[in-house]
Amino acid sequence: MGDHSNDHLVQSDDPDHPANLIPRLCKQFYSLGWVTGTGGGTSIRKDDHVYIAPSGVQKELMRPENIFVLSYPTPKYPPSARQYIRKPLDLKPSACTPLFLAAFERGAGCCIHTHSQWAVLITLLVEKSHGKEACFEISDIEQIKGIPKGPKKGMLGFHDTLRIPIIENTPFEEDLTGSLEQAMEQYPDTCAVLVRRHGIYVWGDTVAKAKTQCESLDYLFQLAVEMHKLGLTWTQSG
Amino acid sequence: MGDHSNDHLVQSDDPDHPANLIPRLCKQFYSLGWVTGTGGGTSIRKDDHVYIAPSGVQKELMRPENIFVLSYPTPKYPPSARQYIRKPLDLKPSACTPLFLAAFERGAGCCIHTHSQWAVLITLLVEKSHGKEACFEISDIEQIKGIPKGPKKGMLGFHDTLRIPIIENTPFEEDLTGSLEQAMEQYPDTCAVLVRRHGIYVWGDTVAKAKTQCESLDYLFQLAVEMHKLGLTWTQSG
Amino acid sequence: MGDHSNDHLVQSDDPDHPANLIPRLCKQFYSLGWVTGTGGGTSIRKDDHVYIAPSGVQKELMRPENIFVLSYPTPKYPPSARQYIRKPLDLKPSACTPLFLAAFERGAGCCIHTHSQWAVLITLLVEKSHGKEACFEISDIEQIKGIPKGPKKGMLGFHDTLRIPIIENTPFEEDLTGSLEQAMEQYPDTCAVLVRRHGIYVWGDTVAKAKTQCESLDYLFQLAVEMHKLGLTWTQSG
Amino acid sequence: MGDHSNDHLVQSDDPDHPANLIPRLCKQFYSLGWVTGTGGGTSIRKDDHVYIAPSGVQKELMRPENIFVLSYPTPKYPPSARQYIRKPLDLKPSACTPLFLAAFERGAGCCIHTHSQWAVLITLLVEKSHGKEACFEISDIEQIKGIPKGPKKGMLGFHDTLRIPIIENTPFEEDLTGSLEQAMEQYPDTCAVLVRRHGIYVWGDTVAKAKTQCESLDYLFQLAVEMHKLGLTWTQSG
Repeated sequence: MGDHSNDHLVQSDDPDHPANLIPRLCKQFYSLGWVTGTGGGTSIRKDDHVYIAPSGVQKELMRPENIFVLSYPTPKYPPSARQYIRKPLDLKPSACTPLFLAAFERGAGCCIHTHSQWAVLITLLVEKSHGKEACFEISDIEQIKGIPKGPKKGMLGFHDTLRIPIIENTPFEEDLTGSLEQAMEQYPDTCAVLVRRHGIYVWGDTVAKAKTQCESLDYLFQLAVEMHKLGLTWTQSG
Repeated sequence: MGDHSNDHLVQSDDPDHPANLIPRLCKQFYSLGWVTGTGGGTSIRKDDHVYIAPSGVQKELMRPENIFVLSYPTPKYPPSARQYIRKPLDLKPSACTPLFLAAFERGAGCCIHTHSQWAVLITLLVEKSHGKEACFEISDIEQIKGIPKGPKKGMLGFHDTLRIPIIENTPFEEDLTGSLEQAMEQYPDTCAVLVRRHGIYVWGDTVAKAKTQCESLDYLFQLAVEMHKLGLTWTQSG
Repeated sequence: MGDHSNDHLVQSDDPDHPANLIPRLCKQFYSLGWVTGTGGGTSIRKDDHVYIAPSGVQKELMRPENIFVLSYPTPKYPPSARQYIRKPLDLKPSACTPLFLAAFERGAGCCIHTHSQWAVLITLLVEKSHGKEACFEISDIEQIKGIPKGPKKGMLGFHDTLRIPIIENTPFEEDLTGSLEQAMEQYPDTCAVLVRRHGIYVWGDTVAKAKTQCESLDYLFQLAVEMHKLGLTWTQSG
Repeated sequence: MGDHSNDHLVQSDDPDHPANLIPRLCKQFYSLGWVTGTGGGTSIRKDDHVYIAPSGVQKELMRPENIFVLSYPTPKYPPSARQYIRKPLDLKPSACTPLFLAAFERGAGCCIHTHSQWAVLITLLVEKSHGKEACFEISDIEQIKGIPKGPKKGMLGFHDTLRIPIIENTPFEEDLTGSLEQAMEQYPDTCAVLVRRHGIYVWGDTVAKAKTQCESLDYLFQLAVEMHKLGLTWTQSG
């Protein structure tokens, strides 16, 4: 492990193989402003493997050989069974790894972490407007229908209130794991957790769902910031 | 019907065939922020067929084989003559279909539905500034000349007032059909209807006209939001 | 004239031939938001010919065969010597043509017309802030050095005040010609004229100069709008 | 020197050779709005050579043969040892050259100069909000971790305060050298200096570090401008 014997895990002609898909997604996320300056990250779980973008690289230039692979037998195995089985020797694994795993343990197939400025601004506005209240809420916007009501519950309706919990940031990214898991338990239906002054983690059953949910949330955050500037409230009750 | 016997309807070497054009348009609309997170849609009518983008797919990745085809003999046939003659088995037809048909019944050749944030913000600002008045109005901006005065009436002039009706959103997209048709009757010259907290439907005689009218309207909505932020009024009378 | 005998005028393997350059520039201007919805236009003078983008087409899809060519012997010939020697039969010549010619008569080699929202907002802010004063002024911004002091006078300095005259819009674009020429005479050093509620005309000795001057001005307009929102003044005197 | 005898210095099949990398970076910076209208510049030091983008060209169209090469034996040689050994005859060397050299003398391998509007707005806001205080400060934002604490000191932490000095602009770019070097001495840990009403210089050990640090700073400037608009402070103390 750590040698080149498992390089075949990131070599595939299938454009939708995780080792090919993660670089393509990261390039797209770069152009959306989500992973500026090596920030953010992406991970895909497929069968018994977890594929993870490395830390500290220019996300728009990532290549399949830069991908880390983690053994991930099944969610029921003890965490000790999980270990890197393919490591690019010149790169560092992502500090987001335990946070991605928390999403996979709840059944996700893909988890995306962005530093989107709209997400950061929302965490600052909620801080300001509502004091201790650590939850972004919005309702009666069509795009809310792009977010699931909860696992196997279908999508939110137009009049439903979307709630995304906000956790406090920590100096080291891996130290977020505890509060992220706590938020996941407190909001078992959420597909995302905002991190104050930092960004967001979004997950979904598949890559397509994680990505489109991440897009829908970012759309709603941007709209909400603009609404705030224009003096418009995010929910009918204010 | 529903089998693969009609796959030839979406197979063409002509880059401007609707089955090739819809994916290309959707990719462009994605980059304009109009169809984020599987939102929005596009439909083209050509001869006796209506081509429709599917529901719930990543719009920038759409392919010709994802396109639905509806039989559409002529506007004078009863609606019962209209039925899907080509369905991708793994996809859902767009909930916008009856709204697209409403535009085709009034002679349109293409109808575009976007979730543009500028459109949504306009519906919120009109709500706020004018109470029950459900119509966006702007005048004395050059780009207004990109919008037709009405079917076969030429384009609006610089001093004309552009009016786009706003209808209330409904939890299910297909339930918008009634109020969309009502707005079309009340504003027989309009080429677009805004949907509150949702987006816009824009149509035109041809694909080029629908697209450039959609662009001109989006330009005007963005400009109007910025004007509002700067304390400038949309019409000379205020 | 008007037939296909002069098609060779728009056929060249040289990527910098005006008939190839105009479509490439227009595609770039489209992505900058300058020619949304068929708005705006571009023209290049080379030797005894003027090449002009057509009216009413999607600017990002323009092709060499869409270009109009006007005979333009020398500036000293009477205007009657100028006539279309190559017309795409299915397209309309640009209504901007007399305005482009006004720039060429003053020695320009390229003229660009945009509907940039930043330009339009500046014309609205000057209208509002300064009453009858029809001139945008800004100083002490590095990017001002991208604008010439006047023909054959070198570039503006950091502490110089950039002045761009603003003329009133007219219902028909060709009717702008008189006031554009008047502004050119009143401001003989300007390389651009803003048109209220409409956009801007920018010209330069070469295509590169016209384009980079247009970019520098657009940068300054955008910055000035943001400065206004933040309560910052455009000149040291306020 | 100045003839074509050293053209081999800018001819390489390696896509990461400085003469190939600078044009690629400049094209990317153009799309980020950092080098609009020929503004800004980029330089790479490699072994005994310094490669510099020329002045006054369209940055998105730059080619390897446009690159200037300066002899740069080692930082210990007297500055007189440094001279152009490859000059494109039709282009002017960048006025930023002495500023790039100041960064290389402090060990940098790459220096980037942008006219980013976010950087300019920050210099205007600090001017306004804090009087004579010539330093941008922000803390408690995750993206701060993309900026180094100082040479060989690792990266800033989440709770650390990022400080970027601001120097006054001068009419001629080369005249900035003195105050840039003074700021570098006063803030020996900084990897960037803001120039009032002008832009920013950012440097790093490698091209990747200079570029990602430049991105992280630009992200923070944009966020800080938006925070200011929303009435949010940049540091916990206000």
